[in-house]
Amino acid sequence: MADPFFQPISGMDLPRFAGVPTFMRLPHIPLDGPRIDEVDIGIIGAPWDSGTTNRPGPRHGPRQLRDLSTMIRAMNGATGIKPFEACNIADLGDVSPNPADIMDTLDRMSGFYSKVKGQGIKPLTAGGDHLCSLPILRGIAAQAPVGMIHFDSHTDLFHSYFDGTMYTHGTPFRRAVEEGLLDPKRVVQIGIRGSAYDTEDRDFAKAEGIRVIAIEEFFARGIPDVMAEAREIVGSADTYVSYDIDFVDPAFAPGTGTPEVGGPNSFQALQVVRELQGINIIGADMVEVSPPFDFGGATAWLGVSIMFELLCVMV
Amino acid sequence: MADPFFQPISGMDLPRFAGVPTFMRLPHIPLDGPRIDEVDIGIIGAPWDSGTTNRPGPRHGPRQLRDLSTMIRAMNGATGIKPFEACNIADLGDVSPNPADIMDTLDRMSGFYSKVKGQGIKPLTAGGDHLCSLPILRGIAAQAPVGMIHFDSHTDLFHSYFDGTMYTHGTPFRRAVEEGLLDPKRVVQIGIRGSAYDTEDRDFAKAEGIRVIAIEEFFARGIPDVMAEAREIVGSADTYVSYDIDFVDPAFAPGTGTPEVGGPNSFQALQVVRELQGINIIGADMVEVSPPFDFGGATAWLGVSIMFELLCVMV
Amino acid sequence: MADPFFQPISGMDLPRFAGVPTFMRLPHIPLDGPRIDEVDIGIIGAPWDSGTTNRPGPRHGPRQLRDLSTMIRAMNGATGIKPFEACNIADLGDVSPNPADIMDTLDRMSGFYSKVKGQGIKPLTAGGDHLCSLPILRGIAAQAPVGMIHFDSHTDLFHSYFDGTMYTHGTPFRRAVEEGLLDPKRVVQIGIRGSAYDTEDRDFAKAEGIRVIAIEEFFARGIPDVMAEAREIVGSADTYVSYDIDFVDPAFAPGTGTPEVGGPNSFQALQVVRELQGINIIGADMVEVSPPFDFGGATAWLGVSIMFELLCVMV
Amino acid sequence: MADPFFQPISGMDLPRFAGVPTFMRLPHIPLDGPRIDEVDIGIIGAPWDSGTTNRPGPRHGPRQLRDLSTMIRAMNGATGIKPFEACNIADLGDVSPNPADIMDTLDRMSGFYSKVKGQGIKPLTAGGDHLCSLPILRGIAAQAPVGMIHFDSHTDLFHSYFDGTMYTHGTPFRRAVEEGLLDPKRVVQIGIRGSAYDTEDRDFAKAEGIRVIAIEEFFARGIPDVMAEAREIVGSADTYVSYDIDFVDPAFAPGTGTPEVGGPNSFQALQVVRELQGINIIGADMVEVSPPFDFGGATAWLGVSIMFELLCVMV
Amino acid sequence: MADPFFQPISGMDLPRFAGVPTFMRLPHIPLDGPRIDEVDIGIIGAPWDSGTTNRPGPRHGPRQLRDLSTMIRAMNGATGIKPFEACNIADLGDVSPNPADIMDTLDRMSGFYSKVKGQGIKPLTAGGDHLCSLPILRGIAAQAPVGMIHFDSHTDLFHSYFDGTMYTHGTPFRRAVEEGLLDPKRVVQIGIRGSAYDTEDRDFAKAEGIRVIAIEEFFARGIPDVMAEAREIVGSADTYVSYDIDFVDPAFAPGTGTPEVGGPNSFQALQVVRELQGINIIGADMVEVSPPFDFGGATAWLGVSIMFELLCVMV
Amino acid sequence: MADPFFQPISGMDLPRFAGVPTFMRLPHIPLDGPRIDEVDIGIIGAPWDSGTTNRPGPRHGPRQLRDLSTMIRAMNGATGIKPFEACNIADLGDVSPNPADIMDTLDRMSGFYSKVKGQGIKPLTAGGDHLCSLPILRGIAAQAPVGMIHFDSHTDLFHSYFDGTMYTHGTPFRRAVEEGLLDPKRVVQIGIRGSAYDTEDRDFAKAEGIRVIAIEEFFARGIPDVMAEAREIVGSADTYVSYDIDFVDPAFAPGTGTPEVGGPNSFQALQVVRELQGINIIGADMVEVSPPFDFGGATAWLGVSIMFELLCVMV
Repeated sequence: MADPFFQPISGMDLPRFAGVPTFMRLPHIPLDGPRIDEVDIGIIGAPWDSGTTNRPGPRHGPRQLRDLSTMIRAMNGATGIKPFEACNIADLGDVSPNPADIMDTLDRMSGFYSKVKGQGIKPLTAGGDHLCSLPILRGIAAQAPVGMIHFDSHTDLFHSYFDGTMYTHGTPFRRAVEEGLLDPKRVVQIGIRGSAYDTEDRDFAKAEGIRVIAIEEFFARGIPDVMAEAREIVGSADTYVSYDIDFVDPAFAPGTGTPEVGGPNSFQALQVVRELQGINIIGADMVEVSPPFDFGGATAWLGVSIMFELLCVMV
Repeated sequence: MADPFFQPISGMDLPRFAGVPTFMRLPHIPLDGPRIDEVDIGIIGAPWDSGTTNRPGPRHGPRQLRDLSTMIRAMNGATGIKPFEACNIADLGDVSPNPADIMDTLDRMSGFYSKVKGQGIKPLTAGGDHLCSLPILRGIAAQAPVGMIHFDSHTDLFHSYFDGTMYTHGTPFRRAVEEGLLDPKRVVQIGIRGSAYDTEDRDFAKAEGIRVIAIEEFFARGIPDVMAEAREIVGSADTYVSYDIDFVDPAFAPGTGTPEVGGPNSFQALQVVRELQGINIIGADMVEVSPPFDFGGATAWLGVSIMFELLCVMV
Repeated sequence: MADPFFQPISGMDLPRFAGVPTFMRLPHIPLDGPRIDEVDIGIIGAPWDSGTTNRPGPRHGPRQLRDLSTMIRAMNGATGIKPFEACNIADLGDVSPNPADIMDTLDRMSGFYSKVKGQGIKPLTAGGDHLCSLPILRGIAAQAPVGMIHFDSHTDLFHSYFDGTMYTHGTPFRRAVEEGLLDPKRVVQIGIRGSAYDTEDRDFAKAEGIRVIAIEEFFARGIPDVMAEAREIVGSADTYVSYDIDFVDPAFAPGTGTPEVGGPNSFQALQVVRELQGINIIGADMVEVSPPFDFGGATAWLGVSIMFELLCVMV
Repeated sequence: MADPFFQPISGMDLPRFAGVPTFMRLPHIPLDGPRIDEVDIGIIGAPWDSGTTNRPGPRHGPRQLRDLSTMIRAMNGATGIKPFEACNIADLGDVSPNPADIMDTLDRMSGFYSKVKGQGIKPLTAGGDHLCSLPILRGIAAQAPVGMIHFDSHTDLFHSYFDGTMYTHGTPFRRAVEEGLLDPKRVVQIGIRGSAYDTEDRDFAKAEGIRVIAIEEFFARGIPDVMAEAREIVGSADTYVSYDIDFVDPAFAPGTGTPEVGGPNSFQALQVVRELQGINIIGADMVEVSPPFDFGGATAWLGVSIMFELLCVMV
Repeated sequence: MADPFFQPISGMDLPRFAGVPTFMRLPHIPLDGPRIDEVDIGIIGAPWDSGTTNRPGPRHGPRQLRDLSTMIRAMNGATGIKPFEACNIADLGDVSPNPADIMDTLDRMSGFYSKVKGQGIKPLTAGGDHLCSLPILRGIAAQAPVGMIHFDSHTDLFHSYFDGTMYTHGTPFRRAVEEGLLDPKRVVQIGIRGSAYDTEDRDFAKAEGIRVIAIEEFFARGIPDVMAEAREIVGSADTYVSYDIDFVDPAFAPGTGTPEVGGPNSFQALQVVRELQGINIIGADMVEVSPPFDFGGATAWLGVSIMFELLCVMV
Repeated sequence: MADPFFQPISGMDLPRFAGVPTFMRLPHIPLDGPRIDEVDIGIIGAPWDSGTTNRPGPRHGPRQLRDLSTMIRAMNGATGIKPFEACNIADLGDVSPNPADIMDTLDRMSGFYSKVKGQGIKPLTAGGDHLCSLPILRGIAAQAPVGMIHFDSHTDLFHSYFDGTMYTHGTPFRRAVEEGLLDPKRVVQIGIRGSAYDTEDRDFAKAEGIRVIAIEEFFARGIPDVMAEAREIVGSADTYVSYDIDFVDPAFAPGTGTPEVGGPNSFQALQVVRELQGINIIGADMVEVSPPFDFGGATAWLGVSIMFELLCVMV
């Protein structure tokens, strides 16, 4: 039976615009807080965007995602799932970044996520830019490489930028493969599109066995077919889900730093997550929501709606 | 033949940004004004949002809908219908709300709509939040329950909020059924989606025989099929059409208080109205357009485009 | 010596954009929470704007004021005061409104503030519209009438609106005088300006002995002289400070519902508070900050900057 | 005694956001409408900006000025003047421009204003860009040159643009002097500032005897002294008042096409108008309010606040 | 082999937000500049919107399109085409308009494009409003009428506005047919929708043999079928491509003056261009991008993404 | 006599919104470009904000400052100075940052400015956050410490952030003093205000002899008196001028990351620069303009207006 302590505050009791905003109006439990050992899934903010090579802003993502998340209710209208009854879910607060030191922040974050894993908590992270996924994987996939389903318009598989800079939001998964955090044979990237510098990232993917599904193929085959392949690729072993909001078309998600036109709509953005049912998800993230480029929280609202769907397939 | 007095001013004569903005550049005729007895359809503003439990703003809807409506022209490009030639249509002004007293406003509004009905005028209302639909129905459906086609992402069938508050924008149709204004067997709700508090509203719908078509069914079956069923449900008797702008996806209609992602696009938003041809429409509304949450009038422009389609099936 | 538990988190440790946003990064202690009995000053959100007769929005004030308040640091740069060392200050959370029932909310709020007073805590409230001041005064001034220094562009002394509606954001202080919560001889209103309906409010002020200082007099005499008179009017007895953000010119505080041009600048907005040093302040509020009409949080930033100055004269 | 027909609707009766927006909620009376012969002052929209050489937008000015003008009340709070009781004032609607033909529009407008003058009505115009002032003067100053008090950051005295283009918003008063509509010895320009192409406009002013008061002199001498000189310059003969919103600092009036920083604040913007008391004003305008560059109507709100002050010195 | 001089600067070398913004970070070569004779395709700004009868702004289009174009990379991700390697492409700067004289600007522009054609350069123009297409055609189609594929929600085939004004953004192709610049039998207009004044434009199209494909037909048949017909209509002879951004739904392209809801999404907006492969394109334009009505450059970003696709079928 | 090559393009010839935007419409001459040896003053963009510990965005500053700078004309209206005739001034383009590596960027920038100095060019830099000033000083003050007049609301004299991070936008002048780039006895900081962490920065200033003029003193003494002291402090030796836009009140300059209310207005923002006449300025910067937090370019417009004033005292 559901523990009342872990239930979100209802908008029928306290209006949605009221109260200190925690993720989905859940209790805020720091890693050293009371009842942390009862938490199954922890929602964590990663307010860091120093890996951004273009337009910054995702450091403000967690704050606005928390704000909009107070409009999420208790039950998934489409599937009937009630995640907060199925699991104990809590807001674990933000991992603390050092905005002026990338290497320091990588260490701060991987340390934090090691502790989360040590507590037996599955993390659902609200970024932050996509470089965040690297220290998360360092924290939770140190023992053995994991699979990944990755929604994005970019592969983020580049070798380096600006004459050898290795840690940017365009390189996390290159590093993760190199470091043995990801099993490239069990990685699928969905929604890739936009103009490209060259084929360096695609060549790496091909060489390593990463499956890249471009947006043209995605639309041509349809979501059920594409997602069936994705499920087959990752199989039943441990799998991470990384969701870059720029997977979605910028009309639906304008608040991001490197938008690419010609993407899925918001219904499709939810559908792909619903198709993850049954996968063994050990963690997930929603990254690149950038409030300074957003309008009235539209992107954050879509972001938390997707996070809620992620919770529904993680429980 | 069309009466020149009831024709909108053409943008070929006076630019669309010029002039005092009335709905669709039609003559402004108050209920006690000259030639009111010649009016067939009256467009009415209901600038009231005191029933809003979340983010307010629709009280500003009529003003901005009037403003954007000056971009509407005379003929429906898709169907060839010329509503202003088919009927005498006028702007009846705004019903006056009391923003600090809900019960008083309910009375003011039902009294106003009784007079409109008494004049033999069919009302097309620009809200206002969804609670507006209740006093409208009290005014025009007092004699006998009517059918309703309701486009929305929410059912608005809840019993009450905040420990017993009966009149909010989440309860109008519960009240309308209870008061015998709506015949629940002739009510269909289309587009329902989003996270839910619980199933209380759906249980009520099921118990009363209200047909609820969730967005997943809507997309799976397609508009012609869904709308054929809707037409069958309401049949040929008196029917009210209530259109909450949050039926449409927030990328197309950001300016609303309780957006739900994953909705129809703007082409579909028009299509569903075109499928109402032949229904015996006694009144209609466009509600929940909230200018403070809009950008550059985008939502109001979609709202008045839908209102124009509604006129084309009402004439 | 300062209690570390009651110190705000430093931006040198955790960046200002990170973390769950409480007022000024202070601990969040509900009225029934641990260590509530150690609190000297409680910052309280009052997310309620149902008394608004014009453009709504202040119900969103507390959330955005909390957000921007994370940019406040520990020491007043101008006066050297360190309020968080001088007193135990905490975020008490939001008082819960019923957005669809004014009378119910008045009761909820006065009940809450009675408890605050019962705990011996001085409240600093973040509104909400100006009607909020009435239930606050009912809660903390029930025993005996108090004095008030009131910064505003409107007197809020009207008798009623819309044919007899007694509770709106234009009437709180008329009610408070009638109910014996305010001693009109010890009330001064500063900054009054803008076009007027008539002189009904001014006539009431004159009859009751309320001192009204219009903006022309304010600018002509200068702040030190005006504030010396204000201090003399309220004397050394219990005094409430009510600060409507529309006291400030809309170029500095655009996010409000009824702006009046021709007001003080932001330096003057702080100066008037600094001149309150020495007054016996039993509570204060910052009201009418309306995020939907704001730009990038400019008004909320000014609002919390003023709230910090208020803290500095309350400690 | 005041004629009820010519009184604005009170916000105490109908909320300010409700109703079809006419200027200051006054009756809308076209030039051929009933009771036009009783009108003393006519407020007229001039939605035209084809003379704009930089950023367009003022064609949208009249619509937004009407919208915001519904927040103006009946009495001047500073002076006690009640313009709507002192005179019969009405909204005469918009003069119809041809946005794609400058010469045609000049003729349309001068014809319209000739009729206004012929009716014995003093026009208060809401532009529109500054070229509007030329056809207004052609309409009302055709018989004899008039004086002018001109608030602006630019002289608008240039000879031509782009190799001989004579009619732009930078040339109206050069033309008006050349055409004998203005008596240059009775013209004063106040607030001039910003970077300059050259001194051609100032040389013309000097040669013709136009008095130019730059912003440095304005601030150094103070408003009472400057305005005393202005009143002396125009004397007791017929005088036109032209008020370009870019006279005011862009922090207070961002919505304009050619802003110049370093201008007066909003209190000073009103003060200069109050100092016009006693001048024989035969017409006035408020130009260059450009909604596409505005934020939330801030500039239009200041614009109509100034227009209200203009009415108070015209009655 | 590709000439390094004509390659865009890579974001891997210089971040995309850095540097003086030329179109797609290409070299800026004025018509009289060095190496102009090596240019194959010239991207040209046409900052002119004086033909706009409704909401102005496209004069600001070229500046913002240049700004956003710095986010375009070197290779088409969908087709693999590398336009900058296939051809020498340069930014030719802006054609200089006279914003206050339509006839003068028509001459300036047709003269400029004659020279471009004389240099053997194919122009890709960034408008500007749709009247720009007329002087472009005068410049490059003076010898013989050309075919045209025209994406738009309006036909722009009207005879005149406002009692005989012949040159507006609603009339360019009527003039172009009359002047023998377009062969109406080889013209197809795709995406037409929205309310209409009357059928005058459609009647002209029918009489002349212009093929008009309304949006309903477009969606019903699908893009491959519609575009096959379009390719057949224009055949292998010289063809111009005119792309009005209001072809796209306003949720994807809000920044335009006369939006019509119910249009294609951004993926379809690109798809139609990809289907132009093989056509003999002598020039193309992207018009009606209006920054003052845009949000964060969303429309300009879509506009330049389409321009990149146009380049890929022009090389 | 002025060299036509170095004159800005006039808005009388080419409208201000047209053309590729260089700083003030001057020729763009890279460091290795032709005629670089004739340049006296170089305007340089420094699109870098990686030292920002709070809200990022100034990396976008140079692009928007260039854009708005096209509205600057040739002559200072207040002083009559024509900087482009007095000196050869050019846009030197942007120094290229590495947004993901602070130490690398510090080196890139100091190298660039060494070359600028080597060419005998005085740099006027458009930032970028305030950390930019450090590598600029390393480039141009390596030989001997210089004096500095610093306009800001913060001292930027902190030792470090986040447990020892030495290079942030809050530490540049601490480093510059430590490195012997600044002579602290010849440094004056003007406008300091806002809440503070502690007095660590002020203690350092006092110990080193840096003069800090808080905003209260600034307003109390007036600009002529304060600036006379500033001129005396720096004397006639080499002096750098650093202008943080957050010196100005956020109503006038909202687009910045760490605004502090209660600052100077825009007229005062210009006045302080005019008072620099006669100082031996070897370089200057305008930093912390952050377009993502700006509205319609208001802050950038003020920023370039100040840069123009800086040019006028540098020539």
